[in-house]
Amino acid sequence: MKKYTEMTQKELLFEKERLEEEYKKVKEKGLKLDMSRGKPAQDQLNLSMAMMDVLKGDSDLRCETGVDCRNYGVIDGIPEAKRLLGAMSEVEPDNIIIYGNSSLNVMFDTVARSMTHGVMGNTPWCRLPKVKFLCPVPGYDRHFKITEFFGIEMINVPMHIDGPDMDMVEELVSQDPAIKGIWCVPKYSNPQGYTYSQKTVERFARLRPAAADFRIYWDNAYSIHHLYDDNQDFLVEILHECERAGNPDIVYKFTSTSKVSFPGSGIAAVAASKANLDDFRKYMQIQTIGHDKLNQLRHVRFFKDLDGLHAHMRKHAAIIRPKFEMVLDTLDRELGSLDIGTWTRPHGGYFISFESLDGCAKTIVALAKEAGVVMTNAGATYPYGKDPHDSNIRIAPTFPKMEDLQEAAKVFVLCVKLASVRKMLGQES
Amino acid sequence: MKKYTEMTQKELLFEKERLEEEYKKVKEKGLKLDMSRGKPAQDQLNLSMAMMDVLKGDSDLRCETGVDCRNYGVIDGIPEAKRLLGAMSEVEPDNIIIYGNSSLNVMFDTVARSMTHGVMGNTPWCRLPKVKFLCPVPGYDRHFKITEFFGIEMINVPMHIDGPDMDMVEELVSQDPAIKGIWCVPKYSNPQGYTYSQKTVERFARLRPAAADFRIYWDNAYSIHHLYDDNQDFLVEILHECERAGNPDIVYKFTSTSKVSFPGSGIAAVAASKANLDDFRKYMQIQTIGHDKLNQLRHVRFFKDLDGLHAHMRKHAAIIRPKFEMVLDTLDRELGSLDIGTWTRPHGGYFISFESLDGCAKTIVALAKEAGVVMTNAGATYPYGKDPHDSNIRIAPTFPKMEDLQEAAKVFVLCVKLASVRKMLGQES
Repeated sequence: MKKYTEMTQKELLFEKERLEEEYKKVKEKGLKLDMSRGKPAQDQLNLSMAMMDVLKGDSDLRCETGVDCRNYGVIDGIPEAKRLLGAMSEVEPDNIIIYGNSSLNVMFDTVARSMTHGVMGNTPWCRLPKVKFLCPVPGYDRHFKITEFFGIEMINVPMHIDGPDMDMVEELVSQDPAIKGIWCVPKYSNPQGYTYSQKTVERFARLRPAAADFRIYWDNAYSIHHLYDDNQDFLVEILHECERAGNPDIVYKFTSTSKVSFPGSGIAAVAASKANLDDFRKYMQIQTIGHDKLNQLRHVRFFKDLDGLHAHMRKHAAIIRPKFEMVLDTLDRELGSLDIGTWTRPHGGYFISFESLDGCAKTIVALAKEAGVVMTNAGATYPYGKDPHDSNIRIAPTFPKMEDLQEAAKVFVLCVKLASVRKMLGQES
Repeated sequence: MKKYTEMTQKELLFEKERLEEEYKKVKEKGLKLDMSRGKPAQDQLNLSMAMMDVLKGDSDLRCETGVDCRNYGVIDGIPEAKRLLGAMSEVEPDNIIIYGNSSLNVMFDTVARSMTHGVMGNTPWCRLPKVKFLCPVPGYDRHFKITEFFGIEMINVPMHIDGPDMDMVEELVSQDPAIKGIWCVPKYSNPQGYTYSQKTVERFARLRPAAADFRIYWDNAYSIHHLYDDNQDFLVEILHECERAGNPDIVYKFTSTSKVSFPGSGIAAVAASKANLDDFRKYMQIQTIGHDKLNQLRHVRFFKDLDGLHAHMRKHAAIIRPKFEMVLDTLDRELGSLDIGTWTRPHGGYFISFESLDGCAKTIVALAKEAGVVMTNAGATYPYGKDPHDSNIRIAPTFPKMEDLQEAAKVFVLCVKLASVRKMLGQES
């Protein structure tokens, strides 16, 4: 098909007529589909059902040091859980603390702690006139919500295929002591599926921040969430890299099993230098008597080790890979020649990032919604929900059933086309 | 035996000789016993082992509204868990939010939230020159640690058998707008085992605080933790009482199943007015995607309803009641006639509170430790760890096995006697 950008006004009008007609018919179907959130599908959850049988009424529920996991005690995680999540995070068990069910909660609490108590002896942020975070964009909406909630000013940093714009990061971080952090999803990034290059990680590790309490919030949510066996991204382990660069305390690394076992019933962890972890521990020993050790035990006895995790993730991949490929095929086939959008082709993670023509994203999402297909809100991938080009849309292909996803993808490309011609004809919806 | 207070100097010296000799022999036994923390014993944990078999690999893991509890969603608790913990808390399911595994964590987060975001639109506490909390004493050390950690000034309020000194509470709260809260364990209080009287609850509900954001932190940790079937304390439900008094927002009520099912693997909850809960929800929806719904489901399917909870608690009581009684018998028999200490006789909860002669508690705990019996640190039951009379000791009889507890109780009374005669003879240890 001819590129929209090469069509005459008349051709565009004709195309628009056709699309409006098609859209009207789609609306009449009364669809109810959801491509909005990065949720595992039901058959992915089924993969972990055997975990329900791991701890039984007659099981020995002591961890390897003999501690009864049913009782109080062991505030920062049982040793075997530290080993398992340490392996997943590529750090030593001593460099990790096991938390409750949500790494987002750990990140939130880390910001909250920095607000009220400061980072490793530095001034609590709530006493500073201004605190800022760098936000690679597009990025993860829930990260941005946390910093917004605490009144932290967010500065957009463009994301490239190899990570955030490091020239900009280096310059800002080295000059402005109000900048206290940066949100990163370094592997299979949310929403692009990009993985930071070796060079990017090295530059992160070598940052010389103006603020002593600047930290990289390294949310390695998709570390083992590959889509392919043979086409995997590789991320340099940052803790070790920071140590080598003489910068051991600059990074907090977050992880969880939310999209490995069960979202909401997994286990989360933070990996960092000993000095940082002591800072975390000082807070957590007042905050709680300890996290759910039985769930830690359940995870360790089910997955056993890193090989067990990888084997399990291959089963996830087998379920979601066809979904990603189908959506990508639909985008290629329907939009590939039209010059009205670009999209990423991730090797892992949970999302595809779509870039429409400038000023079209909100319209596309609104049109899709009207036709019964819920997408992530346009703008959500930017701080304050403000996408300056109104062009980014996050596609989450995992949750719907294949048939539903197919339907949803068709609706989506139709809405992209319709919003684009309308825009090109100067008609806002 | 003759009261120590009626002994002559010579008799005391003779008694001291005898006790020092006895203490020396006890030390030689090399005991290793622990009466320090309110932990359930192993056979109490065994009561809930069947809970491990409730959710199986082939179970339907949807809650009653059809939501798949294995996936994200339902931020404030599944309906059946709200009903169960609502019944336990004597409130409607709409007045409760279900949290993770620790009510202490919820209390901590509530103070943290008040610091950074304020209470229902009031000024965040971190922007105020001074924030104060009232602390009924002796009380729960972990409450005091939270307020201390946030730099909140703590004011001691004496505890009586029917609750805190309400004249003092009313006067302070009505006059000082810097007073933002009071820590309460209203039923089977920690450490005395006292239960607030109807009058006390009514006076709490009718408080007229100078601060609009003053809240009663009502930690109802032992609401169903009776020791006897026929001799139970009754606590007036405060939420309803506050509503009747036109003061619906003045109280946060905390609860958990930590000492019902498994400490660390239970579920916690907060009950409050809708306006307060909306305040909690605003925070929690940024803090997390949701708590562990599978564990909520596990609890509901195991306990079923309030009757199930009560039946289960009777089994706990059967295990710990003889321990309380044995310790009380030992105290009665060994110290009853000596006039060197008093102690409480709780009908529920986890502790006995012991009052020694002024200036003896630290010595008693140190002597016990030296003889291999760990007690809660003297002073721990007071803010900043400072017991002004150095007289209160918390006894936690639940965790040790009966034989061990018997041994520990004997060591304890010996240490009380020895510390007392030393004190009376003017010899500090």
